[in-house]
Amino acid sequence: MKIAIIGAGIAGLACAEEAAKAGHDVVLFDKARGAGGRLSTRRAETHSGILHFDHGTLGFSAQSEAFFHAVSEWRKAGFVDVWSPRAAKLSVDQAPEPTDVSFWVGIPGMNGLLKGLASGKNTHFSKRAVALERKGAGWSVHFENGSAPHECDVVISAIPLEQANEFLSPVAPDFANAVSGCHSLPVFSVMLAFEDTLDMPFDFGICDHPTLKTICRNSAKPHRNDEVETIVLHATTDWSGAHVDDDEEAVTAALMDDFFELTGIPTRNPTLAMAHRWLYGLNGAAKNKPCIWNSQAGLGVCGDWLIGPDVEHAWLSGTALGKAI
Amino acid sequence: MKIAIIGAGIAGLACAEEAAKAGHDVVLFDKARGAGGRLSTRRAETHSGILHFDHGTLGFSAQSEAFFHAVSEWRKAGFVDVWSPRAAKLSVDQAPEPTDVSFWVGIPGMNGLLKGLASGKNTHFSKRAVALERKGAGWSVHFENGSAPHECDVVISAIPLEQANEFLSPVAPDFANAVSGCHSLPVFSVMLAFEDTLDMPFDFGICDHPTLKTICRNSAKPHRNDEVETIVLHATTDWSGAHVDDDEEAVTAALMDDFFELTGIPTRNPTLAMAHRWLYGLNGAAKNKPCIWNSQAGLGVCGDWLIGPDVEHAWLSGTALGKAI
Repeated sequence: MKIAIIGAGIAGLACAEEAAKAGHDVVLFDKARGAGGRLSTRRAETHSGILHFDHGTLGFSAQSEAFFHAVSEWRKAGFVDVWSPRAAKLSVDQAPEPTDVSFWVGIPGMNGLLKGLASGKNTHFSKRAVALERKGAGWSVHFENGSAPHECDVVISAIPLEQANEFLSPVAPDFANAVSGCHSLPVFSVMLAFEDTLDMPFDFGICDHPTLKTICRNSAKPHRNDEVETIVLHATTDWSGAHVDDDEEAVTAALMDDFFELTGIPTRNPTLAMAHRWLYGLNGAAKNKPCIWNSQAGLGVCGDWLIGPDVEHAWLSGTALGKAI
Repeated sequence: MKIAIIGAGIAGLACAEEAAKAGHDVVLFDKARGAGGRLSTRRAETHSGILHFDHGTLGFSAQSEAFFHAVSEWRKAGFVDVWSPRAAKLSVDQAPEPTDVSFWVGIPGMNGLLKGLASGKNTHFSKRAVALERKGAGWSVHFENGSAPHECDVVISAIPLEQANEFLSPVAPDFANAVSGCHSLPVFSVMLAFEDTLDMPFDFGICDHPTLKTICRNSAKPHRNDEVETIVLHATTDWSGAHVDDDEEAVTAALMDDFFELTGIPTRNPTLAMAHRWLYGLNGAAKNKPCIWNSQAGLGVCGDWLIGPDVEHAWLSGTALGKAI
């Protein structure tokens, strides 16, 4: 069958992998200019050179045997490596408490994983699917900017809940009903670069704080070659939700102030400070089943949001759908 | 009565005006650092000096006699002036067609109107109300960052629909039901500054275009004293909705490209380019009644979104509520 997958994040790529194994003819479309989703890496030009920030997912773990096996293969292929940062729990009224964490991280940036998974697959970037139209027993996928529609037997949605809902509900009202009331939570990230190394006693901070959720020393991850100190802050979902309509400027200032206050690092000016709002940053488990597959309609849906917030959930969902087709 | 108004945009200030006239003791709280809402003015430091952009509402008109009267008073007070720009309708396949428009604009920036209206009122900025608690027959308003709660007899919500819903629904479930299914539409604006004057045959462009809604030569408005050319682009709600989770960088690039293409102005690099996402940019008419007032609960709601998308709707809503109390 000819299968079109909308969204080339982990879920879409995992689904593509399984569907291709089963002999299907798979094409992926993504709205962005490159592989990513929330595993993307933001590139910024500064007078100290080009910097890279993992401003979405910072790293991930593997709980299930199946996913651990996949990640081990990715490591052999050079897409990921292990990061065991100096980690600490931080709170307002206590000294930082050392803790142990280990993550898988993409190399040389988080999007290295997606670039690896996308290579050898028929993936089209800068192609935003905007509508689905019935065409005989199959589908015609329409794109923004009037590029030619794509015809196929099966369409797979591997995009965030809200976008999936908007894309599918005109042709699949059942889907809209099934996810009614579910929604993603926004998360702000702030990217900071400093000319001089900060005197930080940890590389990864897990915060018990109303504003900050994590502090990640981006430049301490393995295989990062930027020459200046880069830090990524993630805000709590509570704070992000309350400030979702704030200016980038105000968000940057608020989180940076809290970073200096919570860590006790003397305040200094960054050489670069940017905020990014992940509008569909985090999900709970909207459906508690790994994927939706309607063989009669030729429509499938996968994504982390069906079962949980993590990279592993995205992969499990996409893999389950690819096997179901 | 002691009245607390949450939100110091046009609706909140209009409500405060009427409530104060009736002898009530009124205090306003706003989450932002200064008067604004969508009538705010963004300040940006560049190497060509400090620039100002009206990046929300570009200007407004007065249809009703009551609002026209209010605006005339504001003009006498020096808060607003008339702008009759060289205007044109633009589309992809036709030459620009001259047209006549006139707007009221705040001076020296759009937020000049709000600053004028706020002066003499008891207005507290950088105070984000996060929760309401019943306190005897009145209310206790709780703020972010643990500042002392504010006690009052009546609480007025004068904030966007989604924020009002989140703020009020824990104490007023009726309200959540009444606005269920209503939502605001996002709108992107892009701010551009150029060292040299652009050769534009119009100062205000009304676009028939999939991406661009209006092109506004910010620096051509009356009383603007910035020395460089400043332009504000507004995206269509369709495009803004489809791109709501895009990077600031990608949004800026897309709208700037379309600006050069649609106007035929030769492409050049701006000295400053920024995007702003108005997550609650535009509304339809969610309720078709100017305000909600529950005297028993001591709760009132006003805002443009109840009756329409314009400054006039915000003012009519706030004024109606102020008179009803």
